[in-house]
Amino acid sequence: MPGLFITLEGGDGSGKSTQSALLTDWLVEQGQTVVMSREPGGTDLGRELREIILHRRGYIAPRAEALLYAADRAHNVATLVRPAIARGEIVVQDRYLDSSVAYQGAGRVLDPVEVRDLSLWAAESLLPDLTVLLDLDVAAGRARLDADEKVFDRLEAEKDEFHTRVRDSYLALAAAEPHRFLVIDGSLPAEQIAGSIRSRVVELL
Amino acid sequence: MPGLFITLEGGDGSGKSTQSALLTDWLVEQGQTVVMSREPGGTDLGRELREIILHRRGYIAPRAEALLYAADRAHNVATLVRPAIARGEIVVQDRYLDSSVAYQGAGRVLDPVEVRDLSLWAAESLLPDLTVLLDLDVAAGRARLDADEKVFDRLEAEKDEFHTRVRDSYLALAAAEPHRFLVIDGSLPAEQIAGSIRSRVVELL
Repeated sequence: MPGLFITLEGGDGSGKSTQSALLTDWLVEQGQTVVMSREPGGTDLGRELREIILHRRGYIAPRAEALLYAADRAHNVATLVRPAIARGEIVVQDRYLDSSVAYQGAGRVLDPVEVRDLSLWAAESLLPDLTVLLDLDVAAGRARLDADEKVFDRLEAEKDEFHTRVRDSYLALAAAEPHRFLVIDGSLPAEQIAGSIRSRVVELL
Repeated sequence: MPGLFITLEGGDGSGKSTQSALLTDWLVEQGQTVVMSREPGGTDLGRELREIILHRRGYIAPRAEALLYAADRAHNVATLVRPAIARGEIVVQDRYLDSSVAYQGAGRVLDPVEVRDLSLWAAESLLPDLTVLLDLDVAAGRARLDADEKVFDRLEAEKDEFHTRVRDSYLALAAAEPHRFLVIDGSLPAEQIAGSIRSRVVELL
């Protein structure tokens, strides 16, 4: 029995971490072996790259940034995701190539098609079996982050206009691949969202 | 007056550092403003990436490695090389995209054409005005490195067979772009090599 690759996408504060944890707990209760990952930073190498990408002071050229995300992705897919799927396990991952397209492509100055091609080269064309997009109004996401009172990373600190372009890009990606995406209103109660995700995952199991 | 972009290529121990320094000294004597760079590691960000690429313990997936080199290249070209050329200066650089094709493409398991395309995307298609290839027999290069008694980095420690493939790849690249490349026998005396390089650079100035 082959494994599954499930990714969660959405803006900052949309609830990806909460839903990853709820989905993982439920899958484990069902007797599944689950590997949780995230990008950037799912591997040891990735954690070093995550530190550079998100917390380094000073300018990073846009193509360099996109290539660092792709490097993290290549290593994560080759050493963590593919081996787990091959063992029949379920990978639940916070962010994947759709994040790159939405953030680097729509949000920055790069061509979204080129950014997607770069990710597909990095990942040797691996696409998720299911991508959950937690869609949330930018102001609502920002309010949740503010309530957390944590220090913003480089991307979280971008202006609302940037995050609006990211959200629009996510919705366009989901519309283009309706079979892969499950779009959920991120303002719903967490348990209701978790139920919707479980219903879809049951179909895949 | 536009600047120049000159790169030096060759195996480890072929004399790139020596020739970079000799060329730079001579250009400065001619009244030129010279920026020395290298890949990986020509910028602050690049030095962090160089440390990961060359000295990190543990496996790095081949595509991740190629993407890290490309990230270093993108940042180096965008923030150092292009601005210097735009100011009319001369950039003398130790290694550039031909290294990626020769080492990651021919030496590893990746498609050389894909590796080159990746580099060209990273560099927004910037090619050097001149690339000096210091061609040296693998055994001779190894003997020079041994004489240095320094600790080998990850690539220097590869087997002779690997370095033979790298050399063959370099020579094929030079044959494919004879106008850009100047191939010099790296076993010649350093001053004679420096003279050959100067003759070619004079034509470009």
